[in-house]
Amino acid sequence: MVREASASPPRAVHALAAPYLLFLGDATEPGFAKTALGLRDWAADKCLAEHALPAATVSTGLPRMTPANAAAAGARAMVIGVANQGGVIPAAWMPELLAAVEAGLDLVAGLHTRLGDIAALREAVARAGTRLVDVREPPPALPIATGAKRTGRRLLTVGTDCALGKKYTALAIARGLRARGHDATFRASGQTGIMIAGEGIAIDAVVADFAAGAAELLSPANAPTHLDVIEGQGSLFHPSYAAVSLALLHGSQPDLFVVCHQPTRAQILGTPGYGVPSIEAVIEQTIAVGRLTNPAIRCAGVSLNTAGMAAEEAAAEIAHTAERLGLQTADPIRGGDAFERLLDACAA
Amino acid sequence: MVREASASPPRAVHALAAPYLLFLGDATEPGFAKTALGLRDWAADKCLAEHALPAATVSTGLPRMTPANAAAAGARAMVIGVANQGGVIPAAWMPELLAAVEAGLDLVAGLHTRLGDIAALREAVARAGTRLVDVREPPPALPIATGAKRTGRRLLTVGTDCALGKKYTALAIARGLRARGHDATFRASGQTGIMIAGEGIAIDAVVADFAAGAAELLSPANAPTHLDVIEGQGSLFHPSYAAVSLALLHGSQPDLFVVCHQPTRAQILGTPGYGVPSIEAVIEQTIAVGRLTNPAIRCAGVSLNTAGMAAEEAAAEIAHTAERLGLQTADPIRGGDAFERLLDACAA
Repeated sequence: MVREASASPPRAVHALAAPYLLFLGDATEPGFAKTALGLRDWAADKCLAEHALPAATVSTGLPRMTPANAAAAGARAMVIGVANQGGVIPAAWMPELLAAVEAGLDLVAGLHTRLGDIAALREAVARAGTRLVDVREPPPALPIATGAKRTGRRLLTVGTDCALGKKYTALAIARGLRARGHDATFRASGQTGIMIAGEGIAIDAVVADFAAGAAELLSPANAPTHLDVIEGQGSLFHPSYAAVSLALLHGSQPDLFVVCHQPTRAQILGTPGYGVPSIEAVIEQTIAVGRLTNPAIRCAGVSLNTAGMAAEEAAAEIAHTAERLGLQTADPIRGGDAFERLLDACAA
Repeated sequence: MVREASASPPRAVHALAAPYLLFLGDATEPGFAKTALGLRDWAADKCLAEHALPAATVSTGLPRMTPANAAAAGARAMVIGVANQGGVIPAAWMPELLAAVEAGLDLVAGLHTRLGDIAALREAVARAGTRLVDVREPPPALPIATGAKRTGRRLLTVGTDCALGKKYTALAIARGLRARGHDATFRASGQTGIMIAGEGIAIDAVVADFAAGAAELLSPANAPTHLDVIEGQGSLFHPSYAAVSLALLHGSQPDLFVVCHQPTRAQILGTPGYGVPSIEAVIEQTIAVGRLTNPAIRCAGVSLNTAGMAAEEAAAEIAHTAERLGLQTADPIRGGDAFERLLDACAA
């Protein structure tokens, strides 16, 4: 094959310099700040402080610092911990990004718009001697999916919507199983997961024809008892992103899936007029389309995101859902016996 | 938003210089030569001759000419009319491509590998004063799909596999309806369709996150009685490309779909071990997932690709399928009363 290197070689997604200053932009919706919140929860040792525009109402709870103060306190990089619909960089963020570079920090982002495509940033890092790191850049020369069965076991988290706990659930299941001595690996399919895991592929940044092939590459053949716990993306019921979800489902060939749901959410994020589907509908459709590449696919259980609910209310919702569906149900963030039983179901 | 122009501006997909010399490479499988065969059938006035490597067994039936002879006979461009799995350019093609450029022809391609990424070709066209045209290059700044309902009516062709007649069927339905005085437009979603129509978007070349948005852009809001007849891609049952099919389905929001099927094909193209699904299964799954963005979606009929079947055998297969499914069924290439009835169903 004739396949030459592109003009801009793929940028590293590994070896990010820490600790981080988490940039929250002007976020007023926690769903759009999931990168910052995820890093706080799953890579706490790498997170020093947060920085935001005055309009922001979202907070990680970390101390607020300017880029200059954070650099003086030891920060090595400012991570853009917020995403807009479409993944663009608003003009209002630019002074803050330039200030971070001038303070000597690397800039790390997982947006559709690449930091490296913005001339002012390229010039700033050239002056400051720091780096622009775009973790969403897919690897070069991805394969077309073959659909061929691979050895090893796989679990995929799927959702009734995007941004409601698929990454957290996969991280918690992988951590919980490893704590029990199981051979399990978290596989990151999105920007925050890649920042946490240190490797992975942002499936939604891959050209559509290669997306299922990228998903096959993400969870390669492994020992028969090894379990890959794969971070899901979007939802089969999201009118913008269902194709991303389907590519990940077909390429992952999961033996098991866990449905992630937020009981307090009624509307699909970002698309007015679209209601959140039932867990039952997601189970039915995931099996209906997922059996193409793994006829044995089945639902291992349900992960409820009960953030914002009182403890008793959450416990009642978890118990009620488990009884209604006949499936192990838990909020991995709350943990407890329910989560241990969900881990049993994932290990079965 | 900060969004700068990329280093290489989008290349034109319009105003291709004709007539064409159709390049068949070393194709031995007609399914991989659908671009050349499609141009012969739907843009015959633009097709002068064909050129192939000795190993090729596929032919368009046009006279064979070397690039130099074709240029002398008036050809303006050599169109790469063949695609491999993955859309790469094999090294064996390179001497022929360079010969075409040296003969003064433009090179036109719709492959994943861009002509403009190959230094030897860039240098050759710079010397010869001709052009490299990559029709698969997506437009810049594509939107995320909104899922919002648009005015106008839409029909999408879907398939039990790829490369079995979805483009032909859409072209034939659009042409047949226009001949009846209906306001109908063919919308091209792949490279050959773009070469025929002079515009369109190669949906499978779009980054997955934007694929449904590109499909929304492809069939924009229109007069209430106008019908867009949209070229389908892949199949929901193809383990490599189902995500492309789903993005096109969700973004197109079709009121009607026509299932395209080849009765003589048993295996999904390019993925050993995967059988072609039944038409019934495709109808069921297209409605199950398509109703997300258009709850009124329904099947208008079936298009059978009976190439290679005797006329009586084809007629029997068409009649039997229509009776079994209770749906208008025709082979648009054979036409006849059955196709007129399928057009009735598409116009209803």
